[in-house]
Amino acid sequence: MPSYLEVGMVTIIRVFHKYSGLKGKLKKAELKDLINNEMNHFIMVKQHNKNETLDELFADLDQNGDLEIDFKEFITLIAMVTSHAVHRNLQTKLPLQDKQKIAYFIP
Amino acid sequence: MPSYLEVGMVTIIRVFHKYSGLKGKLKKAELKDLINNEMNHFIMVKQHNKNETLDELFADLDQNGDLEIDFKEFITLIAMVTSHAVHRNLQTKLPLQDKQKIAYFIP
Repeated sequence: MPSYLEVGMVTIIRVFHKYSGLKGKLKKAELKDLINNEMNHFIMVKQHNKNETLDELFADLDQNGDLEIDFKEFITLIAMVTSHAVHRNLQTKLPLQDKQKIAYFIP
Repeated sequence: MPSYLEVGMVTIIRVFHKYSGLKGKLKKAELKDLINNEMNHFIMVKQHNKNETLDELFADLDQNGDLEIDFKEFITLIAMVTSHAVHRNLQTKLPLQDKQKIAYFIP
């Protein structure tokens, strides 16, 4: 039996493939769909400057400049967003249970 | 409702905290326990050189040299291991369903 952690890791891989298909890379529109559909509790982008913010994010992630996001670039986003959540939680003095509840929300 | 991806990200945070406690950092023994208990389908270390390999891994991850692994250093391990799994899968020509089955196993 895989552990919960391993299931979490496989989920990240599966979601990436759901949007990238077999080519294994996300075009900008696919990354936008993925963020909007699967990460809207973690990444909240204000509606009025949504496109601009997502353009900047895409450029930051696309480290090799090929206008596509490969899995290594995508996992950098996951690492960045989860690190941010943990950093915010450690700054608060809530009990662990409550910290985990607020881990979803990054303004 | 959080998405499966978000649940996966929260799981990574929770498992880290389960082993780090409120101090938010893993000592070497805690990282070893986490890997042995939670990642044994993803990271398989041969028994006869187990300690040596884990020592090397710990030194690689501990980028600031404080002899503890913070969450940012831990998520680097998660990124490395999942990237490796994806890289291996993309090299094979299996259908997606079968690829996902073998995503657990990294020798």
